[in-house]
Amino acid sequence: MSNETDIKQWLKDNRAKGARFLQILVQENSTRENESSAQAIIIEKCRQLGLDLDIWEIGGDGLTQHPAYCCDRKSFGGNPNVVAVLKGSGGGKSIILNGHIDVVPVGDEKNWKHDPFSGQIECGKLYGRGATDMKGGTVALLMAIESLIATGIKLKGDVIYQSVIEEESGGAGTLAAVLRGYKADGAIIPEPTNMKIFPKQQGSMWFRITVKGRAAHGGTRYEGVSAIEKALIVIESLQELEKARNEKIVDPLFDKIPIPIPINIGKINSGEWPSSVPDVAVIEGRMGVAPDETISAAQQEMINCLQKINEQEDWFKENPLEVEWFGGRWLPGNLESNHPLIQTLSESFSEIKGEEPIIEASPWGTDGGILSNIGHTPVVVFGPGVTETAHDANEHIVLEEMFNASEIIALTLLKWCEVSQVQTTEEEPKKMVQ
Amino acid sequence: MSNETDIKQWLKDNRAKGARFLQILVQENSTRENESSAQAIIIEKCRQLGLDLDIWEIGGDGLTQHPAYCCDRKSFGGNPNVVAVLKGSGGGKSIILNGHIDVVPVGDEKNWKHDPFSGQIECGKLYGRGATDMKGGTVALLMAIESLIATGIKLKGDVIYQSVIEEESGGAGTLAAVLRGYKADGAIIPEPTNMKIFPKQQGSMWFRITVKGRAAHGGTRYEGVSAIEKALIVIESLQELEKARNEKIVDPLFDKIPIPIPINIGKINSGEWPSSVPDVAVIEGRMGVAPDETISAAQQEMINCLQKINEQEDWFKENPLEVEWFGGRWLPGNLESNHPLIQTLSESFSEIKGEEPIIEASPWGTDGGILSNIGHTPVVVFGPGVTETAHDANEHIVLEEMFNASEIIALTLLKWCEVSQVQTTEEEPKKMVQ
Repeated sequence: MSNETDIKQWLKDNRAKGARFLQILVQENSTRENESSAQAIIIEKCRQLGLDLDIWEIGGDGLTQHPAYCCDRKSFGGNPNVVAVLKGSGGGKSIILNGHIDVVPVGDEKNWKHDPFSGQIECGKLYGRGATDMKGGTVALLMAIESLIATGIKLKGDVIYQSVIEEESGGAGTLAAVLRGYKADGAIIPEPTNMKIFPKQQGSMWFRITVKGRAAHGGTRYEGVSAIEKALIVIESLQELEKARNEKIVDPLFDKIPIPIPINIGKINSGEWPSSVPDVAVIEGRMGVAPDETISAAQQEMINCLQKINEQEDWFKENPLEVEWFGGRWLPGNLESNHPLIQTLSESFSEIKGEEPIIEASPWGTDGGILSNIGHTPVVVFGPGVTETAHDANEHIVLEEMFNASEIIALTLLKWCEVSQVQTTEEEPKKMVQ
Repeated sequence: MSNETDIKQWLKDNRAKGARFLQILVQENSTRENESSAQAIIIEKCRQLGLDLDIWEIGGDGLTQHPAYCCDRKSFGGNPNVVAVLKGSGGGKSIILNGHIDVVPVGDEKNWKHDPFSGQIECGKLYGRGATDMKGGTVALLMAIESLIATGIKLKGDVIYQSVIEEESGGAGTLAAVLRGYKADGAIIPEPTNMKIFPKQQGSMWFRITVKGRAAHGGTRYEGVSAIEKALIVIESLQELEKARNEKIVDPLFDKIPIPIPINIGKINSGEWPSSVPDVAVIEGRMGVAPDETISAAQQEMINCLQKINEQEDWFKENPLEVEWFGGRWLPGNLESNHPLIQTLSESFSEIKGEEPIIEASPWGTDGGILSNIGHTPVVVFGPGVTETAHDANEHIVLEEMFNASEIIALTLLKWCEVSQVQTTEEEPKKMVQ
């Protein structure tokens, strides 16, 4: 049998165990600052596979003083980053397989039909917080690696598997891995893309704009200046800015995306008393960053937009708008669509799925922005998760797609890292370790 | 000497004592639920003047079940309403002189140049919370009454002096007095009008509109429906409604008022996360009510406005806007400008000030709405306080105007209630009681 056939067969034979592995991973609540128990399962798995393990608590000035560091977490103690390397024989291209172990909070539990940490399987779907974002992707990665080991295939290039913390809060885990020296000739991040291939990813950052007014009694509101009315001017200008920025996006990867780089106004708070004219309004939101744009260039566009308002109206001349950049920030990703990694992944996709993959730009940033911008590692985002259910109640993954993704990734590893030698043996391929 | 001359002379002679009386009233902090000590001073004064006192704790089903009752206070115990009557000899018109004893909170004390309860006098102005709104008006009333008693003038009509609680929170004190049976042929409320005469008063009420959206990730905001964007539609419609409502106001009393009955949007809160599409926005505000309009007619106009939005857009068809009427509500006042009470007051004003009074409509409601709408007592609002400093830091009153107001009100009582007999006496008019 060929290597490919061996791998596909092994992966088909071990589906039930793969599903069970995802189940126990989902059952470990790994929300922020609680990543340790899920990481322990990952570590044990990598140990059984015989990978070279690097387990460390991130932190230190090298990380926290880095310009790309964006994190308000006080301590990383007890919740390590994990990197596990399947060393190649040399001469092949290396690859990073990156998954984050942290999951977002469950939100209102009333909206879930199962316990969010049950890992319940129903009609081929596995439910639970993190099932899709992105423990399902993680299982696809680990199954792909194990299929190589179990079938005795040895690669030339290194396979660097990473299970990082903090992706949902700005990427400090992946940044720490980059700064620890982990770079490669390519990287796959199996975030929930609905099996689409994303060479480019929208970056983003949060902003806060404070709009001043002047208080007055509501009965003589004409004696004051309503911060809410002034905020409407700001919101309209931001809507125009969003339009202008998106009209500049001509990359065909964005053809099917209504607003490639949205400016989302997520919050507005103004006023303390119904019968007073509000004297301050605070707008908070998320600004999308184009794949070929820098964070600072995008910031400057918003600053210019506000500056224009400040210059056009007397009120704002005296009470200028200012923007703060706070909280989350995700660097964009920008791999060319014809990069060899995309080609290799696409071929593997077609082989397994029998159809051409959809290649698009992603509407959100991932740790890929850090891997590519800081680590100079070409990144593609491709994974089995259901985009729509990420961060939502009843998050789930279609197990069939998780298994398809593991096959596609395994074939990609064969081609990308190249096969060094096949361990010829009379014995059956090993069973998946538990 | 004529009665008028006697009164004017007595009031001029007792200015220092009047100022001192205001000072001790201001020094008693009478914010909500703390009215008792200031009321004790009022009670003692009325007792010394020999008025018929009626002191009672308001409450009971008759009050709290009344449609005009609008109050969230748990208990009125220990903080009574006070009514003190100077009984007339009969045959004359009666008058209610209504003042509220409650004051609003001081706000940020850092903004005050004196202790808010100092009653500090500086350059002819007395400073302190309540000086203008409306203990200065109360002192003007009591000085006017005392000037009659001290100069031995007896009136035909009853003078019904009221010191009520709860004006600042919806008028439960005055409503309780009305329901206790206190009605009259006319009423003066010396709220701070800058010595303007207000036959009509803008009523008002609070509203809350909840606008629904649909949550989504900010990176794919086109998959959600922003409650903030939907709220903009509501705000614009409310602005149009305000415009339409104010265009209908043709009463010349509103000629100098830019927006006779404003719709003030005092608060907006929406969104919990910068990078999410907000799924709900809550707008709160104050709707002005025209003097010749009922509360329910004004409410219906807003309901119709929202109904129109609900019908015009699919989103609102499925997620209809609703309005709640919560918190404060103040009935409008609507005395015709040529009412005999306005004529009598205007004549007295001209006599004391040597100029014509400004007769306008007030931009805010007072307890006059309850006195007139529920008590069927014709009400004029006229007082010496400085409108702009009410509810603000450094609230103050110009003492000269307080004394002018007391003379104007005393002359008005003479004419309105008519003099019954003058107590002829050789002795000097009495000194003001302390």
